[in-house]
Amino acid sequence: MNDFSNLTYGFAGLGLMGGSLAKAVRAKILNSADAKGKILALDSNVAALATAVERGVVDETFTPAAAAAMLKRCDLVFVCLYPAKTIEFLKKHHSDFKSGAIVSDISGVKTSIMLSLPDILREDIDFICGHPMAGSEKEGFYHSSEYIFEGRNYILTLHPSNKPENVAFFKRLAGILGFSRITETNYALHDHKIAFTSQLCHVIASALVESAEDAEITAFGGGSFEDLTRIAMINAPLWTELFLANRNELLAHIDAFELALKKITGFIRSGDSDGLCRELEAVRLKRIDMSTTERNASF
Amino acid sequence: MNDFSNLTYGFAGLGLMGGSLAKAVRAKILNSADAKGKILALDSNVAALATAVERGVVDETFTPAAAAAMLKRCDLVFVCLYPAKTIEFLKKHHSDFKSGAIVSDISGVKTSIMLSLPDILREDIDFICGHPMAGSEKEGFYHSSEYIFEGRNYILTLHPSNKPENVAFFKRLAGILGFSRITETNYALHDHKIAFTSQLCHVIASALVESAEDAEITAFGGGSFEDLTRIAMINAPLWTELFLANRNELLAHIDAFELALKKITGFIRSGDSDGLCRELEAVRLKRIDMSTTERNASF
Repeated sequence: MNDFSNLTYGFAGLGLMGGSLAKAVRAKILNSADAKGKILALDSNVAALATAVERGVVDETFTPAAAAAMLKRCDLVFVCLYPAKTIEFLKKHHSDFKSGAIVSDISGVKTSIMLSLPDILREDIDFICGHPMAGSEKEGFYHSSEYIFEGRNYILTLHPSNKPENVAFFKRLAGILGFSRITETNYALHDHKIAFTSQLCHVIASALVESAEDAEITAFGGGSFEDLTRIAMINAPLWTELFLANRNELLAHIDAFELALKKITGFIRSGDSDGLCRELEAVRLKRIDMSTTERNASF
Repeated sequence: MNDFSNLTYGFAGLGLMGGSLAKAVRAKILNSADAKGKILALDSNVAALATAVERGVVDETFTPAAAAAMLKRCDLVFVCLYPAKTIEFLKKHHSDFKSGAIVSDISGVKTSIMLSLPDILREDIDFICGHPMAGSEKEGFYHSSEYIFEGRNYILTLHPSNKPENVAFFKRLAGILGFSRITETNYALHDHKIAFTSQLCHVIASALVESAEDAEITAFGGGSFEDLTRIAMINAPLWTELFLANRNELLAHIDAFELALKKITGFIRSGDSDGLCRELEAVRLKRIDMSTTERNASF
């Protein structure tokens, strides 16, 4: 599997993420007339499938009922469904994948997938569990874009049966699609860290909007409120599932955040100017250190 | 005062905001060789003043000790200092301003200025109290830019002695400098709203960084954490002053935010999927409504 342009790519789910990945494969790999590779996609949204074909993103489309017919042809399958549906799909179609295929998911929580691995893994396919850290506050194929992966993180939560050559292949693919940093970690650490960087941020943004007195607030905005709350235009069913699937990790981070908020609020309440200034200076340096870590990281 | 290009503009303080305003005046008003207007600036940072002259932003510079010599020549003065220093400057130089001048400030808290108005106002000058809602996590003249005002909000907290023609003049000027929405309000409402849209956001961003376990977190970032915490690279002395000068309003908003956070956390803790999804859907619609309000507003 070294010539990316000869492969058949399958997308189970052609929403924001599936659509964006398919568009990136089309734009960056299968973009010449003589490319032999194909893009197949299945979705319950027939209109989205039709649009994808019309725009030249997808070559052939399938209904969910015809999934097996698609899967048996694909060298690489991205399952781009909500977390619980992803597990359901992988179990249901366990015997439908083409022998030798690489199968991956995009789920934002991983422990529940780990618990289902015995029902998912097959000796002759390689399931590379991954989390492309990109998205948009807008959902669906209509808002998908091949550009959302540029410079983003891709987290892989591997297991011992993953073949090194397939992992290396998958990492090269991620780089071609635009990701700049690919990190390997385990399921538990993924869910612990993601509960902080992603889920806690969505909870905070939502609470901030919830606490707004009215919608007129943006006349007084200087950019901070807008930046902090853009992600509160949230896909409610998806994030409900993500929050609850990672509940314990998320609750622990919410507790830690509340403590930190109380610490800073304490300085404000007591009017401790020196203490507050020292605390904010420490926060500033910690955040700058994060940016530096970001710049220096390379994989 | 209708020909903007004939005026003498004075900047007391040439940091990020003073520097950006001066650059915007230079780029958008005094950009032709035959413009008769001038830009004068004072700052205690001699190196910043020298750079400003070298780059053609400022025509003449003054030390703080020579402020009177500058102020008596200026048709329009922007006092771009920290809040307490702004009040101190306006009081100290009460008799130094040119008769007929318009004087403005950029302070992010207004009630303390209102309380000092009797010592600031003069019958023959017009003090237009304002808050240009722009900035950067980077400070100082070196990071100033004429572009930071594009599409931003400008809040004016007027008082009865402001002359309508001067207010109209000032609003036209703000539009020329790039601001897209100019809102008139009173001191108390400004401080109440700003405590939410600006100060609370900075407190939350700081608490979020404070609660991070380590600086390696950005390998797991998908954009949300980065967007929420960019403003935590905070100017500690300035924000210490802003938080404490508006303490009561800010504490009330922190309390309301904590309640909203507890509401959302409650759904997560109890595993109430339906309740959580309904709550997130309501938040989504409220935030979308804010974007719509933003787009529809015009002044």
